[in-house]
Amino acid sequence: MGTKNGAIVTKLEHPPGVPFSSDEVEKALKEHKPHVLYVAQSESSTGLLQPVEKLGSICHQNNCLLVVDTVASLGAAPFFMDRWEVDVVYSATQKAISCQTGLAPISFSSRAREKIASRKTKVQSYVFDVNKNMVQWGVDGVAKKYHHTYSSTLLLSLREALSMIAAEGLEQMWKRHSENTKRLCNGIEELGLELFIKDPAYRLPTVTAICIPEGVESPGSLNAYCMEKHKVEFGAALPPLVGKVWRIGIMGYNSTEWHTNKALSVFKDGLLHIGYTPKAAKVKAEL
Amino acid sequence: MGTKNGAIVTKLEHPPGVPFSSDEVEKALKEHKPHVLYVAQSESSTGLLQPVEKLGSICHQNNCLLVVDTVASLGAAPFFMDRWEVDVVYSATQKAISCQTGLAPISFSSRAREKIASRKTKVQSYVFDVNKNMVQWGVDGVAKKYHHTYSSTLLLSLREALSMIAAEGLEQMWKRHSENTKRLCNGIEELGLELFIKDPAYRLPTVTAICIPEGVESPGSLNAYCMEKHKVEFGAALPPLVGKVWRIGIMGYNSTEWHTNKALSVFKDGLLHIGYTPKAAKVKAEL
Repeated sequence: MGTKNGAIVTKLEHPPGVPFSSDEVEKALKEHKPHVLYVAQSESSTGLLQPVEKLGSICHQNNCLLVVDTVASLGAAPFFMDRWEVDVVYSATQKAISCQTGLAPISFSSRAREKIASRKTKVQSYVFDVNKNMVQWGVDGVAKKYHHTYSSTLLLSLREALSMIAAEGLEQMWKRHSENTKRLCNGIEELGLELFIKDPAYRLPTVTAICIPEGVESPGSLNAYCMEKHKVEFGAALPPLVGKVWRIGIMGYNSTEWHTNKALSVFKDGLLHIGYTPKAAKVKAEL
Repeated sequence: MGTKNGAIVTKLEHPPGVPFSSDEVEKALKEHKPHVLYVAQSESSTGLLQPVEKLGSICHQNNCLLVVDTVASLGAAPFFMDRWEVDVVYSATQKAISCQTGLAPISFSSRAREKIASRKTKVQSYVFDVNKNMVQWGVDGVAKKYHHTYSSTLLLSLREALSMIAAEGLEQMWKRHSENTKRLCNGIEELGLELFIKDPAYRLPTVTAICIPEGVESPGSLNAYCMEKHKVEFGAALPPLVGKVWRIGIMGYNSTEWHTNKALSVFKDGLLHIGYTPKAAKVKAEL
């Protein structure tokens, strides 16, 4: 998207599933001197939780704004926009927030707002003109002015979803996601399989990637079988991990002990279907 | 929007509420030689229904594509994309379609599709990249590919709204809108007021603009009173007609005799509230 809009984009690349350290980021900022650093807290194709708490201050020491994608983590993992000095955060409503698809909540720091307000070139998009949106949203108590028609239905749904989050408490939500992900990871390891993210500290509490063991020829048939037989959908792998991982997503309202155990038992049945005998099944047969 | 995206835009201007004739359009096309002609079938700030049936062939004789905005007319007034040789049509779901806000249906002719497919510059928007959307929509039977997450809730609502339209029949919907608009216009004239669009053939069957008579100092107080007292909202006037017209919108599911009579009686009460004595009220008092 940056390139499409005329920005000069430099990618920092790592082997999939390995988080960036703050030292690496600092070194790159000093070398490339970007105006904006973009990072995904939730790298859902690998199941990686990228630590972002130190990146804001590093960015600001280097005259750079920090933009964080929290699509698959907001509500499931701790996130402190102000404390971590994050300038732009966006997310999605249909993941841990447990609302419907179709909205993308976004928030701006005062640094980001100044940058946007001082922009000199025209915004090519109509609906994504943030300065105009801010007037419609009524930030700063500015009189609201009609800019575009959004979905009041979805906005009301989001309000309801947020009220459920407020009732449970964010800390409790983070704890619940963390516990169920540990339960899922333990269950996967008990089946004799390996998790793609080795260090539990960097595992997303919403999406878990599982290494496809040697000798499995058609891993996609597990997904198709589980959908057909059990009406349970596991995530398809995304590049560059196609054929390398299965992905299990459990989040929001569904992050419960029951759903986790259900996912594990369906996944195990899927493994048997494709001819892979899980370790736990072996143990059971030996008893 | 055109200017923002680097296009050279020439505006054809008329006094508000006067339709463009096909001869005028033809002359302008020959003079300016544009690649695209954009026209609103439904000019809702004045209540004008712009005839568009001849514009497509005129455009194509002049190597120009025709884009038509049908936001406030689709479902309420006849529209024939293929027969009228329209290249791009877009609309909204929350007007005559009687669905929710949040979707904008769009359709392309094969001419428009060729133009889009042969585009050489990058599309700056992610979600509005039509070539990519077409793959996600599965047009041409191309394998569907995930591009962006849209609102399945709204899409399902639209399907339901369209099934209601199919059950009633488009011709019947056009007739219903036409009859209720005539009923509304007659009622307004019986109150001694003048309609902004003089020729009934050019009146939108969804939004009716009423000339504010001489001597009314604060026409907006009628709207505020009707909202407060009757919970009926009349449309605020938009530039360049602020202070010149009131607007009554009745469309879709609500285009009924009952709603029309209700709007008329509330509007009449609003007139009395602001100190304007409608002719019909005078007649009644004389009896």
